[in-house]
Amino acid sequence: MTAVSPLAPAAFPATAPVDGVELSAAAAGVRYGAGRVDVMLASCAPGTEVAGVFTKSKTRAAPVLDCEAKLSRGAEGRPDPGAAVIVNAGNANAFTGAAGRDAVADVTGAVAEALDLPGDRVFSSSTGVIGEPLPAERITAVIGSLAAGLGSACFEDAARAIMTTDTFPKGAEARARIGGTTVRVAGIAKGSGMIAPDMATMLVYIFTDARVERGPLQSLLSGLCETTFNAITVDGDTSTSDTLLLFATGAAGNAPIARADGPEAAELERALRSVMTDLAHQVVRDGEGATKFVEVSVAGAASDSDAKRVAMSVANSPLVKTAIAGEDPNWGRVVMAVGKSGAEADRDRLGISFGGLPVAENGRVSPRYREEDAAAHMKEREIRISIDLGLGAGEFTAWTCDLTHGYIDINADYRS
Amino acid sequence: MTAVSPLAPAAFPATAPVDGVELSAAAAGVRYGAGRVDVMLASCAPGTEVAGVFTKSKTRAAPVLDCEAKLSRGAEGRPDPGAAVIVNAGNANAFTGAAGRDAVADVTGAVAEALDLPGDRVFSSSTGVIGEPLPAERITAVIGSLAAGLGSACFEDAARAIMTTDTFPKGAEARARIGGTTVRVAGIAKGSGMIAPDMATMLVYIFTDARVERGPLQSLLSGLCETTFNAITVDGDTSTSDTLLLFATGAAGNAPIARADGPEAAELERALRSVMTDLAHQVVRDGEGATKFVEVSVAGAASDSDAKRVAMSVANSPLVKTAIAGEDPNWGRVVMAVGKSGAEADRDRLGISFGGLPVAENGRVSPRYREEDAAAHMKEREIRISIDLGLGAGEFTAWTCDLTHGYIDINADYRS
Repeated sequence: MTAVSPLAPAAFPATAPVDGVELSAAAAGVRYGAGRVDVMLASCAPGTEVAGVFTKSKTRAAPVLDCEAKLSRGAEGRPDPGAAVIVNAGNANAFTGAAGRDAVADVTGAVAEALDLPGDRVFSSSTGVIGEPLPAERITAVIGSLAAGLGSACFEDAARAIMTTDTFPKGAEARARIGGTTVRVAGIAKGSGMIAPDMATMLVYIFTDARVERGPLQSLLSGLCETTFNAITVDGDTSTSDTLLLFATGAAGNAPIARADGPEAAELERALRSVMTDLAHQVVRDGEGATKFVEVSVAGAASDSDAKRVAMSVANSPLVKTAIAGEDPNWGRVVMAVGKSGAEADRDRLGISFGGLPVAENGRVSPRYREEDAAAHMKEREIRISIDLGLGAGEFTAWTCDLTHGYIDINADYRS
Repeated sequence: MTAVSPLAPAAFPATAPVDGVELSAAAAGVRYGAGRVDVMLASCAPGTEVAGVFTKSKTRAAPVLDCEAKLSRGAEGRPDPGAAVIVNAGNANAFTGAAGRDAVADVTGAVAEALDLPGDRVFSSSTGVIGEPLPAERITAVIGSLAAGLGSACFEDAARAIMTTDTFPKGAEARARIGGTTVRVAGIAKGSGMIAPDMATMLVYIFTDARVERGPLQSLLSGLCETTFNAITVDGDTSTSDTLLLFATGAAGNAPIARADGPEAAELERALRSVMTDLAHQVVRDGEGATKFVEVSVAGAASDSDAKRVAMSVANSPLVKTAIAGEDPNWGRVVMAVGKSGAEADRDRLGISFGGLPVAENGRVSPRYREEDAAAHMKEREIRISIDLGLGAGEFTAWTCDLTHGYIDINADYRS
């Protein structure tokens, strides 16, 4: 359909399997034409702990409600039987009423039976069109072959299976040393439009062979989400289906991480942050119609939350994003977006730079500003906007892309 | 530059002069080429009371800060000498530091001298490019001829003088009967992009010959702003310069309106609401690149403020707005926008209709929904989206336009 984003990485990173995780993928014909691989299954070994973060939408899709309910129960008091996640593209199973709940039960129930797991250890996601009944029978029809094929797919295959308007598959990996043991973290993601704070249309599955108890696993994931996936925006829209799941199989055999604030957790956190930041950036790089990757760094705010308000206000501004598309160093629009953010700001202390070049300071254009230098920076593929509010120590960095004709083309036609 | 919006009214309304108000307009060459009329002056008779509402931006432009300061002082304790407002297009005098304040003082001071008014009874606005010094001397150079020409311009001339990316001049009028006296209300506006709640880039000047005390005048204006100018959005961006000024000359000779809650005030309020709603709709109809006028009505919310959150979330959603541009009855995106609004919502009580046609009810697609009917409505120029949250009595109506290639064209090139 669409050409690969000009901001895409050169290639999917070489990602070795993660101990205790087996993947497979299949073409179920959920919506796309014959042969398009549109379902992926991941199976995790006994002992796996699971953590998750989900969309805050009040109109959450059926699979999201199901994941949340299952995670809130956890696996306490029973020998942990492992876990699995099945994901389809083409249909979001959102706003589908009771039939949507039934469809989730059918799909996860069939996986549970095939893998001999309790039903509440099988998670699922669906992405694609909203409001049309999910043809669950097309998915259940391929679960036998998905189960039989476990181990035959790599992370890139799984990442490709869950693409919708994505123009490239998204993956990342990292390693950490925990008490002498090397552990691995690998993740895949999908998402290109409807991306905004609070987990916009994004599906992310991260796997590690580290052994981590459930409490610290969830703490690490929730904490890192704020400055990674909740720091990106494509269009300010929030999906009904956003899901971030983290599976820790424990197969690496390290001494279990029991607290989120110890040195072992810090090592794992570093690897997780690397994978989550990398995937979040890839989602922005695949923003619908994107031709520029934009970093908006805010410092000097009265608080971190004020800094985030300013950063997201700038990153979500259609006027800023169209100016970037037009390669116009239109810093007046940045001033506008700072002003409308609602955060504490003092016009006469505000400083702005583009690509490290001073643009505005002390409430007016910088005497060092040269339009031709700023214009040269705007022609690059990676744009850096830095804002210093001159008030306090609060800071936040957000990432976004420009707003182009490509976005309109994709979204005026695609029935998402 | 751009063709007239396809949503423009057939013609500027025939608007008779308002007693006690004289207008003139001139070409000062602030930014545009020779001959473009870019400054307008309105002079109001002695006894005029003035009310105002301004942008909430933290980076308010110099003229806005000046207007606010002057209005907060008022004219108490002295025989009211009248009032004037001077407005230029081409340069917003925003983010211009101390030079910006000096430019406002130069321009308003020159008007005060020419019209023999105290300096604090002369208001001003500037609209156009942000961050470039206002060439005040070009404006002061034409103030003599503006003052000499008072009474020579009509409302349409004044509305044309303050246009920037507007494709048509905006005006409206209404009458009311107050204690046996007919009073008139007439207003002009400019604004086409950077329009959002909290008075986005919009300049509005309303004149009435009604006699109204300052307290009730301000109350009426502030109250009506919430459901008129603060209920429209083009792109969610908020300007540094938004100004709404209301001048009541008292020349109609009615018994003074001294309270905002009496029957006389209600009559005036009705006429003001008509003018303000009409002007607000015209601003949306001139939304940059707009091809559809969209009304988003929310009912059944837990509160009016929740209803507004939902209405503005839908009206600001790029995905909803691009779907409308594509004439796609993509109600799934409306569900998404309801969900992300943050307002109380219950997916299983949500009802949606397009152009009065039921689309979704009770958390799923309506059994009465027929895609071809909804698709036919989407081909119209005026789109109505109705949302019933099924929770309470809160309601709000917002107006917006679609998001098209035209918006990108205008904003990737225009240095605003």
